[in-house]
Amino acid sequence: MNSAAQFAQQTSLRLEIPDMGIWPITTPITSARLDHGDIVVDWEDQKSSHFLALWLREQCPCTICHSEITRETLIDITDIPLDIQATACRLDDTGYLLVTWSDQEHASRYHPGWLRAHCYDDWARAERGRAQQTWDSRFSVPEFDAIDVLKQDETLYEWLSALDQYGLTRLRNVPLEKGSVAQLAERIGTIRSSNFGTVFEVVSKPDADSNAYLSVELPLHMDLPTRELPPGLQFLHCIENAADGGESRFADAFHAAKVLKEEAPDIYRLITTVDYGFQNRAVDCDYRASGPLIELDSNGDPLSSRINTFLTAPFTHLRREDVKAALEAKHYLMRLLNEDRMRVQFKMAPGDMVAFDNRRALHARTEFFPNTGYRYLQGCYLDRDDLGSRLRMLERAKLMTAATNR
Amino acid sequence: MNSAAQFAQQTSLRLEIPDMGIWPITTPITSARLDHGDIVVDWEDQKSSHFLALWLREQCPCTICHSEITRETLIDITDIPLDIQATACRLDDTGYLLVTWSDQEHASRYHPGWLRAHCYDDWARAERGRAQQTWDSRFSVPEFDAIDVLKQDETLYEWLSALDQYGLTRLRNVPLEKGSVAQLAERIGTIRSSNFGTVFEVVSKPDADSNAYLSVELPLHMDLPTRELPPGLQFLHCIENAADGGESRFADAFHAAKVLKEEAPDIYRLITTVDYGFQNRAVDCDYRASGPLIELDSNGDPLSSRINTFLTAPFTHLRREDVKAALEAKHYLMRLLNEDRMRVQFKMAPGDMVAFDNRRALHARTEFFPNTGYRYLQGCYLDRDDLGSRLRMLERAKLMTAATNR
Repeated sequence: MNSAAQFAQQTSLRLEIPDMGIWPITTPITSARLDHGDIVVDWEDQKSSHFLALWLREQCPCTICHSEITRETLIDITDIPLDIQATACRLDDTGYLLVTWSDQEHASRYHPGWLRAHCYDDWARAERGRAQQTWDSRFSVPEFDAIDVLKQDETLYEWLSALDQYGLTRLRNVPLEKGSVAQLAERIGTIRSSNFGTVFEVVSKPDADSNAYLSVELPLHMDLPTRELPPGLQFLHCIENAADGGESRFADAFHAAKVLKEEAPDIYRLITTVDYGFQNRAVDCDYRASGPLIELDSNGDPLSSRINTFLTAPFTHLRREDVKAALEAKHYLMRLLNEDRMRVQFKMAPGDMVAFDNRRALHARTEFFPNTGYRYLQGCYLDRDDLGSRLRMLERAKLMTAATNR
Repeated sequence: MNSAAQFAQQTSLRLEIPDMGIWPITTPITSARLDHGDIVVDWEDQKSSHFLALWLREQCPCTICHSEITRETLIDITDIPLDIQATACRLDDTGYLLVTWSDQEHASRYHPGWLRAHCYDDWARAERGRAQQTWDSRFSVPEFDAIDVLKQDETLYEWLSALDQYGLTRLRNVPLEKGSVAQLAERIGTIRSSNFGTVFEVVSKPDADSNAYLSVELPLHMDLPTRELPPGLQFLHCIENAADGGESRFADAFHAAKVLKEEAPDIYRLITTVDYGFQNRAVDCDYRASGPLIELDSNGDPLSSRINTFLTAPFTHLRREDVKAALEAKHYLMRLLNEDRMRVQFKMAPGDMVAFDNRRALHARTEFFPNTGYRYLQGCYLDRDDLGSRLRMLERAKLMTAATNR
């Protein structure tokens, strides 16, 4: 059992919150009242929150509604009447919110820290919004020491936060042993295997099943656009780089999206809405996938790119005029990405590792010349899911430490 | 080296097509002509296809444009002028299309089977369209013999085609040994591991970290809605099912979408556009994801569901009115799914395995009573990617056999 589980058992938190999170009570509730069957809560900082009855009832943390063992919901939510109303509310001695309901004489008790963290009033949503930080050629890639990352959770957290925020980081001082890339990846979560294996070797080989394993220049691209969900993270560890050429180049697809939105809105509309197809050419598998070159989230912000010009599948699903416009938009985007103002470039040295968001920070390699020296990288993939989970677990651990020391 | 690679080496196909596919020449080209710099091809069946110059040029299979080794594109597509034109075209002795271009005196040679399979004229796109086959309580779940699936590629192909088409199948006669579920999964591809392991055991356990491992009724749901891409396939192999209760229930979320689109368009709009959140409650990880309850593809057809009422994260990103409407829409959908007309139900017997699309065919379990007997299932996940790749590889093998025997 890990320390999180021990902590959960030692405290009574698990019975008070319908998840495993730690929710410090930064702002106590000063009063609570009914509002047409809903609840309004006033906070010590003069703000107020309105909680819909149906929302609040579904989240009731009691052991009838949520399992004490799994924390998952036990009630059938369709048993809650859509017109449910709170019939009374008050604060208890510890500052928790008590509510009784119009259905089945049920009563609920809510943790004030959890309520504050989940309220959805305009002011609260505005506070939580975070602007995306994109970058261009002036970007100074954040660097971290690999030994510190391996040994200290604090450095791990700083590294992963930077990776989450910018989608491109560089580790220095990575042990030159083969497999170091996997060791670093496992600080986050499970490596995602692919048809290229778990840890793949980037060297020039005669039986290459990817252009990456030739010595040719690779244009800015992401890996595995042929998968429904391409890997979120890619790590490339440089073990030798003695050949002439073989410099690394990166560009932020999200920054390109921002530029296009302003400079060429028609192009922006096409690359964010048309499905572009991709297919691999492997002997042993036949993956195909499609999607916009830049996929937007429900707020209209870039969520993911799907850009690779050497694994393109020909359009077969669009009308001729639309094919023409879509191809032209792709060219426009690729030319923009290749502009000097968009990209950073450097040569990796032995002991360097780049860690980047494969669905955002496009990577490229200049041609290298195998007869001038050996170039050998090891790489692996993870998913964004695992980065998010690890970051939240590290945050949870920090909060637990703070709570335990209080 | 597998048979596909041997075949590719034995034939000249690899130099003539920019992928590893086998494209039988079902309909030869009878003539080809220029049309304002584009190409028009006439087929033996009186149909015609128009190919845009830019589209065709990008797909040129020559060894300058595509690597002989990897089949991947070598040219920088942005080097192709957007206004490129075909300057001449003709058929060669073997019926291939020859084209010369306005850039760099380049010449291309195209395989007629490949051209026919990829043309995008209105008639061609209409031929390729496939209506989704959804199902309700009258559905007779397709059944296959597990031993045949393990031994014969033909039965494997039939099973996977049914799984692809309906999203729910049942295998009989699965060996009762533990691990059989993995053996069957590996007929498709790599098992997708999760925080529940590679093969998970569905039994009632005291330290359950999922409601699945309690004995309670599980409402219709999918697994891992908390992941950005929930697993596409789920296999559940019944090894013992002696306890009272514990029947299996399934409903087709895509059919529910179809019903709602007709019966309640406002609800349909909400469940296909609002982001609903999910979070797990594990001790060791903290996955969160969100998406519409039914995600539509770019044609407006259901692509994927994200439905689970016991791993719900409370809405925190919507305005109050929108929260209310979204919660009501979820209730509406869940009530519809629970109607008798929507679902099939049966009790799995030892030796049965259900294989279903976790992102489409929702599953449920009635409560069971561990004191009346033992209930023990093993399960695992795969991705839709792997199903698609395996189906295409089986099709490729069939075409190769046909081509070799010709």
